[in-house]
Amino acid sequence: MSGPFSFRTLAHDPATAARRGRITTQHGTIETPAFMPVGTAGTVKAMAPEDLEALGYEMILGNTYHLALRPGEDVVRRLGGLHRFMAWDRGILTDSGGFQVLSLADLRTISDDGVEFRSHLDGSLLSMTPERSMQIQMALGSDIAMAFDDCPALPSERSRIEAAVRRTTLWARRSRDAFRGEGRALFGIVQGGDDRALREQSASEIAAMGFEGHAIGGVSVGETAGLSRAVVESAVPLLPADRPRYLMGMGTPGDLVEMIGLGCDLFDCVLPTRNARNGTLFTSTGRLSIKRREFADDPRPVDESCTCTVCRRFSRAYLRHLFMAGEILAMRLNTLHNLHLYADLMRRARAAIEAGRYAEFAAGQRLTGDPKIAREESE
Amino acid sequence: MSGPFSFRTLAHDPATAARRGRITTQHGTIETPAFMPVGTAGTVKAMAPEDLEALGYEMILGNTYHLALRPGEDVVRRLGGLHRFMAWDRGILTDSGGFQVLSLADLRTISDDGVEFRSHLDGSLLSMTPERSMQIQMALGSDIAMAFDDCPALPSERSRIEAAVRRTTLWARRSRDAFRGEGRALFGIVQGGDDRALREQSASEIAAMGFEGHAIGGVSVGETAGLSRAVVESAVPLLPADRPRYLMGMGTPGDLVEMIGLGCDLFDCVLPTRNARNGTLFTSTGRLSIKRREFADDPRPVDESCTCTVCRRFSRAYLRHLFMAGEILAMRLNTLHNLHLYADLMRRARAAIEAGRYAEFAAGQRLTGDPKIAREESE
Repeated sequence: MSGPFSFRTLAHDPATAARRGRITTQHGTIETPAFMPVGTAGTVKAMAPEDLEALGYEMILGNTYHLALRPGEDVVRRLGGLHRFMAWDRGILTDSGGFQVLSLADLRTISDDGVEFRSHLDGSLLSMTPERSMQIQMALGSDIAMAFDDCPALPSERSRIEAAVRRTTLWARRSRDAFRGEGRALFGIVQGGDDRALREQSASEIAAMGFEGHAIGGVSVGETAGLSRAVVESAVPLLPADRPRYLMGMGTPGDLVEMIGLGCDLFDCVLPTRNARNGTLFTSTGRLSIKRREFADDPRPVDESCTCTVCRRFSRAYLRHLFMAGEILAMRLNTLHNLHLYADLMRRARAAIEAGRYAEFAAGQRLTGDPKIAREESE
Repeated sequence: MSGPFSFRTLAHDPATAARRGRITTQHGTIETPAFMPVGTAGTVKAMAPEDLEALGYEMILGNTYHLALRPGEDVVRRLGGLHRFMAWDRGILTDSGGFQVLSLADLRTISDDGVEFRSHLDGSLLSMTPERSMQIQMALGSDIAMAFDDCPALPSERSRIEAAVRRTTLWARRSRDAFRGEGRALFGIVQGGDDRALREQSASEIAAMGFEGHAIGGVSVGETAGLSRAVVESAVPLLPADRPRYLMGMGTPGDLVEMIGLGCDLFDCVLPTRNARNGTLFTSTGRLSIKRREFADDPRPVDESCTCTVCRRFSRAYLRHLFMAGEILAMRLNTLHNLHLYADLMRRARAAIEAGRYAEFAAGQRLTGDPKIAREESE
């Protein structure tokens, strides 16, 4: 193993809160701002690890809940940890499982101890606690683990959000106490819903615990875009500037450009991969639904300004044909294209921050018209 | 366009009928004996063209029936032909559609004119004739087109097989008359079921028509392995030695080794690709069903003697996990492995013929235990 986890900022944009940073892990460095594709079940759907390497990704997200259910963290640990299991030598961040047990599993009961739920796979009764989440994440061996949190949907009653903030702080402490990092990092998560005072309370409580990084959770869970922005704007200044800031579960290309400008460093979202499998492709000028009849004869690439391996080789007509025929290759090619667009957007954002012209870069993106989607952290 | 189609034999094995040859097309050369993966709908399922290139394949098979139904040969022609449509610059052989309209389509009526059938996609009433098959194949622009044939399943009444032989000769002549090759090749197909006299009659009639190559059809359609062998043994000597011999729809690795020894040059089969998607992997010592529980913790590659990209990087445990979780990547990795095994087997067979020791090579293959499967030329 190489040295422990670290983060440093390399540049600050003069006109925005955007910053250029570098995370160092036992599995290489991650240049930030960075987007992490979601690898729910030990694979970013339709992608092999060499595809993600070729696209330039340096860190992916793994889902603790899904991997604990199947194949089980003991299997993964016996096979050398998640990196070795899925043959991915670069960074892995695992979520805490908190969002999934509250959104995917059935018959959950939540208490200060943790969450009881039924597996969405076989209905078996299971529980997730801070200690159990840490146990799973340590077995998986992720470079960044997340504290177990209580993440309510929006809108929720203020009493529910208050309880979530209290419990998230309680669970953050228990997560920290249970976590043995061995050079790996644990990030705390800020909750607080759409309530500014509760967000500030949560941020100050979590920031005081000495986590190696901080996440803003409970965003993109049903609220409007304006509210997401307000939440991030209020939370970011309360998080230590010398640690990475991870905005969980967001978002569209437009969201990413905006949230980088507010000072966020890390992102994850199922949007590029799930949309790809549904035939929705991102382009430099908006979205394109490849199944539309108008593309049946269209010899042009998906995006004429795109340099990805798909746009260099295949026409819209061919991609439409593959999609309409239900071919597996459609999933692969669409995913390659969307993930290239996200990776390329991040590369250009980093270059713009280094050049001190992030505001111009953000204003120049034609990524409008992206509707908000509710957060789904796994797929 | 480069020069026209040609074939020459480079070496003959002294102890068997195996021969080493080279087909030249407008899309490069094909070293024979060669196996062609089946690319039914303009893609070999789960593979991108660069994957097939990396595996060393020089020719694939496209299904006339499927492509005519979707996206339609006019779309493919307008987009520059099948090579350009699917971004594959190497060889393409298209089948005639005869096997599919008789096996896949509904409500077929067969007459000397052709076959009337209902589309398996939308139930529309369509017909396939020798002229229509040539029209489609010319629009697709394949390097090798196949004459339209009448391919009965086995067992069939002798009268049915007699009719098929008569009609196949009639249709071969009409196919030849309708085909405008422009440097591309048209192969005739021998039928005759399991009747030696009818096979000989068909072979001599088809061989007299001057096709650039000849196929043995109606094999692996329900008969025993011994019967397949007898059919091929009786047909091969009647086919001109200076033209390629294509054994349609076969087979297992063991079948290929055997049939190369009888003098066949070209093969196609859905077995490596379809089995891959069903979780059955070929290895140097037999088959392996990746879903078996015993592999859940197995850190070994699928085949410890295999040099494919999958065996070099992934464990049985990971492949089993992907398969059990229904991940798209399972389809891709399993297909890459099986197609590597087939390509490698062909490379080694060619080398053995060049070295004059094909009999020893064939005897040394531990590919036993492969059950026969009924032929399915598309997937």
